[in-house]
Amino acid sequence: MALLLAVKAITQENREFLAQYDISVVTPDTITDEQLPEVLISYAWDTEIGHKILANPESKLKWIQAQSAGVDYLPLKTLQERQITVTNASGLKAVPIAQTVLGYILHFARGLNVYSTRKHWEPFTDQYLMSELPVLVFGTGRIGQQIAHAVKSLGGVVFGVNTTGRPVEGFDATYAISDYQEALAKSQVVVDGLPGTKETENFFDEHFFQQFNQLFLFINIGRGTTLNQDDLLSAIDDSRVKYAALDVTTPEPLPMNHPLFERPQILLTQHTSWGEQESAGRVGGLFRLFEKNVPSFMADGTFVQNVVDLNKGY
Amino acid sequence: MALLLAVKAITQENREFLAQYDISVVTPDTITDEQLPEVLISYAWDTEIGHKILANPESKLKWIQAQSAGVDYLPLKTLQERQITVTNASGLKAVPIAQTVLGYILHFARGLNVYSTRKHWEPFTDQYLMSELPVLVFGTGRIGQQIAHAVKSLGGVVFGVNTTGRPVEGFDATYAISDYQEALAKSQVVVDGLPGTKETENFFDEHFFQQFNQLFLFINIGRGTTLNQDDLLSAIDDSRVKYAALDVTTPEPLPMNHPLFERPQILLTQHTSWGEQESAGRVGGLFRLFEKNVPSFMADGTFVQNVVDLNKGY
Repeated sequence: MALLLAVKAITQENREFLAQYDISVVTPDTITDEQLPEVLISYAWDTEIGHKILANPESKLKWIQAQSAGVDYLPLKTLQERQITVTNASGLKAVPIAQTVLGYILHFARGLNVYSTRKHWEPFTDQYLMSELPVLVFGTGRIGQQIAHAVKSLGGVVFGVNTTGRPVEGFDATYAISDYQEALAKSQVVVDGLPGTKETENFFDEHFFQQFNQLFLFINIGRGTTLNQDDLLSAIDDSRVKYAALDVTTPEPLPMNHPLFERPQILLTQHTSWGEQESAGRVGGLFRLFEKNVPSFMADGTFVQNVVDLNKGY
Repeated sequence: MALLLAVKAITQENREFLAQYDISVVTPDTITDEQLPEVLISYAWDTEIGHKILANPESKLKWIQAQSAGVDYLPLKTLQERQITVTNASGLKAVPIAQTVLGYILHFARGLNVYSTRKHWEPFTDQYLMSELPVLVFGTGRIGQQIAHAVKSLGGVVFGVNTTGRPVEGFDATYAISDYQEALAKSQVVVDGLPGTKETENFFDEHFFQQFNQLFLFINIGRGTTLNQDDLLSAIDDSRVKYAALDVTTPEPLPMNHPLFERPQILLTQHTSWGEQESAGRVGGLFRLFEKNVPSFMADGTFVQNVVDLNKGY
């Protein structure tokens, strides 16, 4: 009998599925100290229990199913040394995040940012169509592809940036991260969808913002660490960046009176860009993604999808 | 030489096009009293000059190109008696209006209404995907069709209502205006895109709002007269309608302290849902639409598109 630690809730139906593979379920509330080293699979990650598990050299842990697309909060180096596989939730939240990004763009393009607080009659006509705001997305994975699909559906133009500039379906053109300037010059909206790695830390800094005179909208749905917030604030304050919409910030939560709260040009969605109604538990689709790897893992320890490269961190 | 009164600005290129058909251009600033009865075509409508033209029984006026999709502000009965043709701008603003409607839906669905004024950390997770908010559009003309396209592109469900219930491409199903209740019961968003006629006056009233316990969002991009605003306010106040987004209101402009300004659940865009950047004159594409009818009109007085049925008023 293999042991799965369910950090996130799983249903009775899920348990029956696991039972077919001789997997039994424990939860953070019920797990005993004796069971800790027996855990083979961690379904989602709890930092405290996870630390206890990894502290034991006899631990049987072989697989962590992360509850998120980014996994920079996991002890990646230790996991690599211990030969523990991490699968992420990439793709799970691509549709809701893309809808939030489209909502951000339309919010500012259609003037809803002005109208949402206007309490007197004063028509605001400095509006844009999607086709008038070319979008440059840093990151062409599943979230980037969903954003591209949404933008194209409404007649917009969308460029993508990835490591090598390899073409990705749905983008009008793609560029290498070392060579994105041509695309930036043509764009009015920049979407930061970069993973949180050493290479991407502070990628969007003063140097980046100095490359244009005016950008309509800067969006961060990647990782807070990829953006130098002070540099963004400077760019907002001298109008090089007209508006910003940030789902991720450093730190989270942001303290009261943080300068990001004080700028009317900045919309903060407090790490909820991935929300949807159906998944009341906020991870509704996670098991559907997880279960695809169960048969091969239990048969021979292999995975069919969503494996994280622990060297790259994504 | 035929005379065209250009109420809206036309370019030198437009004038050269018209010259090919022996049409010369006057503007409201330069027109003389002697020229008034000579005007054959009014390109857009100015109420004051239009009244003077129609007051003269010798007027040669035969064609009014309206600057809008709805033409309820024109003296339709008089125009009919005088056998003057009205062409409207239907289709011209369908794309920007559909993008505004999508912006409204995502604004409330993604919680941007909450976040746009939140100045402290308090994540809001009562969010929806487009697929979780079926949309019912009253009016399946070009604006309705663009809305349907936008909703479907993002994985949503969209029903349409027209006079007879005839099928229209792009809608999942269409219903007759006498028989829309089945669709309403399945919908979370209602879009009022009805033209302003005697039949549609106060269509959305207490009787309409009593048909459901909770509607997520009511949108009006049709005509202010189609909605009983007091009844909507009651429905908002007792939560039968959670949110509303109104582009058109009665009256316009709304006076200070009007109750519609006082409800945080109501977003008012002050008749600018059709805005775009390119058309600095706000009617950028009107001539492109107008010019298609010029050859046939000058040849034999016929029209190829956008003719208003003066009996129906649209």
